[in-house]
Amino acid sequence: MAEQAALRTLKEGDSFNGFLLAQEVAFKTSAKGSEYLELKLGDASGDLKGFLWDLRAVEGDLDLVAPDAFLKVKGQISNYNGRTQIRLDKLRFARDEEVGDLARFFPVSRRDAEEMAQELDGLIAGVKDPWIRRLLEALFVEDASRREAFRRAPAAKSMHHVCLGGLIEHTLSVAGMADRACAHYPDLNRDLVLAGVLLHDLGKTAELTYQRSFGYSDAGNLLGHISMEAEWISRAASGIPGFPEELRLHLLHIVLSHHGRLEYGSPVLPKTPEALLVHYLDDLDGKLEAMFRGMREDAGEGSWTPFSRSMDRMIYKSRWPKVD
Amino acid sequence: MAEQAALRTLKEGDSFNGFLLAQEVAFKTSAKGSEYLELKLGDASGDLKGFLWDLRAVEGDLDLVAPDAFLKVKGQISNYNGRTQIRLDKLRFARDEEVGDLARFFPVSRRDAEEMAQELDGLIAGVKDPWIRRLLEALFVEDASRREAFRRAPAAKSMHHVCLGGLIEHTLSVAGMADRACAHYPDLNRDLVLAGVLLHDLGKTAELTYQRSFGYSDAGNLLGHISMEAEWISRAASGIPGFPEELRLHLLHIVLSHHGRLEYGSPVLPKTPEALLVHYLDDLDGKLEAMFRGMREDAGEGSWTPFSRSMDRMIYKSRWPKVD
Amino acid sequence: MAEQAALRTLKEGDSFNGFLLAQEVAFKTSAKGSEYLELKLGDASGDLKGFLWDLRAVEGDLDLVAPDAFLKVKGQISNYNGRTQIRLDKLRFARDEEVGDLARFFPVSRRDAEEMAQELDGLIAGVKDPWIRRLLEALFVEDASRREAFRRAPAAKSMHHVCLGGLIEHTLSVAGMADRACAHYPDLNRDLVLAGVLLHDLGKTAELTYQRSFGYSDAGNLLGHISMEAEWISRAASGIPGFPEELRLHLLHIVLSHHGRLEYGSPVLPKTPEALLVHYLDDLDGKLEAMFRGMREDAGEGSWTPFSRSMDRMIYKSRWPKVD
Amino acid sequence: MAEQAALRTLKEGDSFNGFLLAQEVAFKTSAKGSEYLELKLGDASGDLKGFLWDLRAVEGDLDLVAPDAFLKVKGQISNYNGRTQIRLDKLRFARDEEVGDLARFFPVSRRDAEEMAQELDGLIAGVKDPWIRRLLEALFVEDASRREAFRRAPAAKSMHHVCLGGLIEHTLSVAGMADRACAHYPDLNRDLVLAGVLLHDLGKTAELTYQRSFGYSDAGNLLGHISMEAEWISRAASGIPGFPEELRLHLLHIVLSHHGRLEYGSPVLPKTPEALLVHYLDDLDGKLEAMFRGMREDAGEGSWTPFSRSMDRMIYKSRWPKVD
Amino acid sequence: MAEQAALRTLKEGDSFNGFLLAQEVAFKTSAKGSEYLELKLGDASGDLKGFLWDLRAVEGDLDLVAPDAFLKVKGQISNYNGRTQIRLDKLRFARDEEVGDLARFFPVSRRDAEEMAQELDGLIAGVKDPWIRRLLEALFVEDASRREAFRRAPAAKSMHHVCLGGLIEHTLSVAGMADRACAHYPDLNRDLVLAGVLLHDLGKTAELTYQRSFGYSDAGNLLGHISMEAEWISRAASGIPGFPEELRLHLLHIVLSHHGRLEYGSPVLPKTPEALLVHYLDDLDGKLEAMFRGMREDAGEGSWTPFSRSMDRMIYKSRWPKVD
Amino acid sequence: MAEQAALRTLKEGDSFNGFLLAQEVAFKTSAKGSEYLELKLGDASGDLKGFLWDLRAVEGDLDLVAPDAFLKVKGQISNYNGRTQIRLDKLRFARDEEVGDLARFFPVSRRDAEEMAQELDGLIAGVKDPWIRRLLEALFVEDASRREAFRRAPAAKSMHHVCLGGLIEHTLSVAGMADRACAHYPDLNRDLVLAGVLLHDLGKTAELTYQRSFGYSDAGNLLGHISMEAEWISRAASGIPGFPEELRLHLLHIVLSHHGRLEYGSPVLPKTPEALLVHYLDDLDGKLEAMFRGMREDAGEGSWTPFSRSMDRMIYKSRWPKVD
Repeated sequence: MAEQAALRTLKEGDSFNGFLLAQEVAFKTSAKGSEYLELKLGDASGDLKGFLWDLRAVEGDLDLVAPDAFLKVKGQISNYNGRTQIRLDKLRFARDEEVGDLARFFPVSRRDAEEMAQELDGLIAGVKDPWIRRLLEALFVEDASRREAFRRAPAAKSMHHVCLGGLIEHTLSVAGMADRACAHYPDLNRDLVLAGVLLHDLGKTAELTYQRSFGYSDAGNLLGHISMEAEWISRAASGIPGFPEELRLHLLHIVLSHHGRLEYGSPVLPKTPEALLVHYLDDLDGKLEAMFRGMREDAGEGSWTPFSRSMDRMIYKSRWPKVD
Repeated sequence: MAEQAALRTLKEGDSFNGFLLAQEVAFKTSAKGSEYLELKLGDASGDLKGFLWDLRAVEGDLDLVAPDAFLKVKGQISNYNGRTQIRLDKLRFARDEEVGDLARFFPVSRRDAEEMAQELDGLIAGVKDPWIRRLLEALFVEDASRREAFRRAPAAKSMHHVCLGGLIEHTLSVAGMADRACAHYPDLNRDLVLAGVLLHDLGKTAELTYQRSFGYSDAGNLLGHISMEAEWISRAASGIPGFPEELRLHLLHIVLSHHGRLEYGSPVLPKTPEALLVHYLDDLDGKLEAMFRGMREDAGEGSWTPFSRSMDRMIYKSRWPKVD
Repeated sequence: MAEQAALRTLKEGDSFNGFLLAQEVAFKTSAKGSEYLELKLGDASGDLKGFLWDLRAVEGDLDLVAPDAFLKVKGQISNYNGRTQIRLDKLRFARDEEVGDLARFFPVSRRDAEEMAQELDGLIAGVKDPWIRRLLEALFVEDASRREAFRRAPAAKSMHHVCLGGLIEHTLSVAGMADRACAHYPDLNRDLVLAGVLLHDLGKTAELTYQRSFGYSDAGNLLGHISMEAEWISRAASGIPGFPEELRLHLLHIVLSHHGRLEYGSPVLPKTPEALLVHYLDDLDGKLEAMFRGMREDAGEGSWTPFSRSMDRMIYKSRWPKVD
Repeated sequence: MAEQAALRTLKEGDSFNGFLLAQEVAFKTSAKGSEYLELKLGDASGDLKGFLWDLRAVEGDLDLVAPDAFLKVKGQISNYNGRTQIRLDKLRFARDEEVGDLARFFPVSRRDAEEMAQELDGLIAGVKDPWIRRLLEALFVEDASRREAFRRAPAAKSMHHVCLGGLIEHTLSVAGMADRACAHYPDLNRDLVLAGVLLHDLGKTAELTYQRSFGYSDAGNLLGHISMEAEWISRAASGIPGFPEELRLHLLHIVLSHHGRLEYGSPVLPKTPEALLVHYLDDLDGKLEAMFRGMREDAGEGSWTPFSRSMDRMIYKSRWPKVD
Repeated sequence: MAEQAALRTLKEGDSFNGFLLAQEVAFKTSAKGSEYLELKLGDASGDLKGFLWDLRAVEGDLDLVAPDAFLKVKGQISNYNGRTQIRLDKLRFARDEEVGDLARFFPVSRRDAEEMAQELDGLIAGVKDPWIRRLLEALFVEDASRREAFRRAPAAKSMHHVCLGGLIEHTLSVAGMADRACAHYPDLNRDLVLAGVLLHDLGKTAELTYQRSFGYSDAGNLLGHISMEAEWISRAASGIPGFPEELRLHLLHIVLSHHGRLEYGSPVLPKTPEALLVHYLDDLDGKLEAMFRGMREDAGEGSWTPFSRSMDRMIYKSRWPKVD
Repeated sequence: MAEQAALRTLKEGDSFNGFLLAQEVAFKTSAKGSEYLELKLGDASGDLKGFLWDLRAVEGDLDLVAPDAFLKVKGQISNYNGRTQIRLDKLRFARDEEVGDLARFFPVSRRDAEEMAQELDGLIAGVKDPWIRRLLEALFVEDASRREAFRRAPAAKSMHHVCLGGLIEHTLSVAGMADRACAHYPDLNRDLVLAGVLLHDLGKTAELTYQRSFGYSDAGNLLGHISMEAEWISRAASGIPGFPEELRLHLLHIVLSHHGRLEYGSPVLPKTPEALLVHYLDDLDGKLEAMFRGMREDAGEGSWTPFSRSMDRMIYKSRWPKVD
């Protein structure tokens, strides 16, 4: 893909010529009875509304202009009531091969991908319990495709860390807090906690789809990520000769119970201190990220974000300043 | 074990000499300050209270007289306020080897074990879908120890079919109803439903302990039976070259969702007609058995059984007579 | 009503001239300030959007053009973005008398009405218990207007079997399953179960309105169908000299408890095996129908139906093929 | 029954000779192996524990000494740890005919029965709406046995107004408050409200048993009082030629909805101001009575009553004094 | 503000020239690409839709045309599908000073403000307990700004009494009912009850904002009205030398518990008869007002109001006529 | 109090002579009809059962032998079925003055009281925000009696940290974790979080009684600790001239919302990151302590603690060993 301007940088009067991801596509009829096309187009920097008033300006098959397709578009930026729009002159479907690095069209983690991967490797290498370290290596290091998926997947479809790299970012953040918690509560088994944290959402790599828009895979809808990662852990453990059964049970227990309540999809309640801790720190990290992101993204005035359905509340944006 | 009278057949004035399972053991002090022993002793036919007024009549180590131990006892049957009791003259701990067939000391299914095993084999042999039949054979036929466990396990610790052989009895009953349902709703895939039924509680063989009193194993408490059987199914499927992934997902989905609600321990809701049916028929069969058993076992007068905590209600015992 | 084409058969370019039911009516203003009319028009085969761009083309009183009215319309079929529409040239209100058989404008059961009525009669005739048979005859056979209503009513406003004839279709389906269940669980009293099934939703004939769009009657909103049918049963029983009080209580109990939980509108929980069975089979049948219908009606691609609010989930459409 | 001392008046050292109701009966064995009888005996003024140390002192059939039986007893009052007891010398079963007025052995309303009956008659006579008055007369005045039952029944088994006459006492109290509320909210239809109040618990006369200990009848357990009174109202209305259907629906609605929530056993929510009012005032009156009674009956020190399971809280007994 | 016609009085063809409150403001684009302005404009008598087809007709800064702003508008009334609209010719932002008495633009209580203030003063003067009267005077009489706020505030944002003066109207209505209840239940401490009623929603004066549209203040969102009024009561009590601690606790308890359930925001359950009564009468009054208002405001045909989200039901509008 | 042996150190055959706290007192009757006294007696090290077979051995007023009284006792230690008991020869009521340091008779925190007080002072001194530090000093340092109470109070009556000093121990533990969390999530305002932690349970000093057995005070039952500490914070803030209102609101919000859900007694949900964090870390710390204590105190065999009602589960005691 040749260089093209990021949507966030465009101003009224600019021309734009490049690839964009079609997030929403609607054919509409005007009162005069003529049809037009209203689109929501995006790249990683943001999105804007697009209008094509004359459908004859579409090159090629109109049926390919659909959600999740890449489009090659050309048009003029206008400003309407404070929001940027694009009036399209030309539009055609684009094959993925033309587009280049697809990741440039999705929200991505604010942390550097390579740095996160190295941090993960370091955490695994630092595990002292040989059985646990061996299991983590089998799951996170030796299986190249899972390793790749874990770096790329979002942490959720809509709740928190909804971006490429969100899963590893969230996992590392919980791991960091878990490390601190194990220093604070010395009776906790740090290696067990760390393993629980790294494994707790591993199944999201297969539960979610994130090649285009974020959604659930068939397996995700039918089984859920907890069941999938539980199977992977068992399989990996059975590939390590002599892997202790009690350790396998404890790790599976942490993973199965990490949603904390049956009605949130955990088939068992956390029954060990390590399982309890993983549940709390996972939940806390997701909710803090959602709060801070909600504050960052809300450009509106006033002290409150809009009502957040996932949090079931508005967030108070006003920050009491820190004293250094 | 030499022949000994079944507890249910004993009458006031009988002598008894034989082995019994100690279900409850309590050392008590009389107001005079002397210690005595109050026991609940059972065989497969029932149980009664036992009293040993002089602890010196215990042979050997007193500490071995504990719940779940077999005891060799000798005493006289008395009748107290309508209930049989035994006044013990002698008592000693007994090793399992002395006792012979342990199954004679636990409640057992009312159906014949061999007949049930053959019915199960017949159901599996009748499956037309080769992949499904192959999977069921791997789990129920070829693995001798699982096969044995499935014939022996109870269906639950306290809700329904609480007896040796209860698991297979319940499973076959649900399978029978499922067969009729598939004839009634022709769009259902019978082989899929049948496999779901046979597999839905297979994990109970490892979730519960039933060598002595019925309880939960460590793995049962940490993982639950659904997670265990899900792993077994996946493992068995991966042992069958070419096993279709979509079929594996569907079978796992039926098993994972069969409790019907998240708060009852299913991590996903039933999302296919086959999964929905297995959930309803399983639930119905357990509750009907609990109702009918509650009626049979309640010798009391009046139209109502005692309040059943598991059903959260009393059951109306009065039966409107059938007309033939 | 003269013959007119079914909406489902129309193609772009066709003319249409006939009666249609106005399901939705909206007067809108175009940006130019002129008013137009947007309608949703239906017959039993389906529905389509209609547009009338010039209100002067309406003959007669504009106020009569309202939801649930029949309209005589004339126009041209066009195709817009894959969906059929009609551009109206003429439109007027039509009196019911002009329209002929109103049933031609509503969704109807897929089963033949006469065949269902005969099946119902056969079921009642097959009841061996004379008291029960007598009661069913009083309610379903001798009262001609109730008999007619039971053949015509839908089973629900929005959950399942939402069509004319839906009530009897659903009732017969549950009765068929109940028959099979009584063969499977021989301790059940089949006549009692069958009566419970036939009676369980009888009150829907008065709870719902279904002359035009489906809704709730005043009595339905104020009392609910369970209370209404309970009264009818008591009244019918008191019309049969010597009707046994215990049987009356048991039948009322089955009907009152058939929603299975207080929070679903049953004032008592099912406390007999017969009541429990009727609850489960009723619930199962409604949900299975909703699932299968959801699959049939969803023409969309992908493995999943849209989110169903009544089921609180999406349904997996992909069917594992049966092996014969 | 000859005059006998009320239990509440007995002091240590008194002799007692008379009839008492056996509320609880337990045969127990002492550590020495001898059997004795422990009883809870009551009259309307209260109850005490009784002990019979020698079963040979029982005249006649021991099996008749059972809960809910009247006993003729003779013994000495002792005082044990602050509570009165009776050491029995003689005891025999007594037939009801010997005992005289059974009502002397149950808790009774603190209000005079005759006065309450007259107040009820006055309320009904004061209803201005002729249809409503006619219906109330049919149910409360003309049916002598229902009239008698309504004067005698308790309002509940365990929640509030648990005494003979409790139902009419509670009903009149709610009626009094309802009268005041109708004066305050002039848009309310007072006759409708009053009828709803008088009818709302009428079914308790058949739901509860109160000849001996208070409990539920078979019909009560199977149908609940709401369903029973709904049927009675409909039947009475159909006995009044021309009774308006809309009024019948409204009255039934008030009665059916008066528990206020589906999970409390009302099949519909209150949907009119009159229905809402009846629900609130009924609920309030029951809870206030339970609170005030809890305070009166709690002789303990401290500011709090014991934990009340029905209220799910302790009640603060300390009363801020009124200023006149 | 010069005299201007109330919106409710306008008819098709009228001209209008005056100030209105902008409740909603939307800039829209027509299919032709031209922008127009769609407004919801209101005064105390009601609201209507306004359209300005040519944005050049706006005088001054367009950004000031925003929700909650007053606008000076000029236009013609038209009638569209039964609803009045205004087609605007001119429009400009108006400063509050121009507008005059802002209260003329909001819904106001149907009761006279002065009369309500006097009724409140009378209630307080009638309190016999000197401590309680002293406290009420401190909070309602001596603090002029709180006194003023209490007269002006609405009772809620959306549930009931949503109008200026709604808080005092609701409070007085509950107080009236409480007075009657204390006459009916003589064990209640009337002064305590009355104080609880007057104080129970006092914090709404600070929880809500009601200078323009009704909403929540920052403090309201962060603390809730219960916490705020609890603090005020404590502060006022500590300003009265010798104020009895037990009375302070009891008053705070009534206020803290008046929502009746923890999940409705009360940190404690009502544990005294006075607290229980205040909870019930407050809840009842709010719901009755919402019901009666719903009936008054619903001009639609049929027996039912639209579904009320706050009541979770439709209300039956049909009123059984009173007989005098 | 002279030196006396700690209960935990006593062995069979020892004599004991000293003061003990009566935790439970029951007068019982033996089957022979003689009365005896059964006691639960404790010091800080533990408790044991005591029996006094001859009530004449009690010196002085028998009525003073009541729960929460100190007793002077003399007796012999015996061992009964694995548990130590004391057979009492003499017993009398003891005045508090005789007993000396009462704290020796209650469970106490495992951490040193002085060390904890210093740690608290250090935390407050380290707060950089002058307003927050000033407020904490006012509440924790300058008010000597509150300072003392905060050092002495338990954290709860039954859930976690149920010992003298438990409140400060729990508070400091949460503060330690909060400190680590603020280092991990740099956007958090550490001073605000720390203040929230220190203040979140301050009201427990007045909610609970802990001079003898642990319970709730009248104020605790009527208001709850959250309402009490909210008032104290407001009062302290108003004592600091110029204290910023926004800061006061934010601190109150953290305290009011720290139970995390309305149904757990918080009138508002946490709406800032700081409030959310305090809720999670408080909850986590209490549950971890309860888990670890449950494991420590359970001497039983097997992998599981008894069922914990407060946690609604059993805890898995088996610990996977750490690798160093």
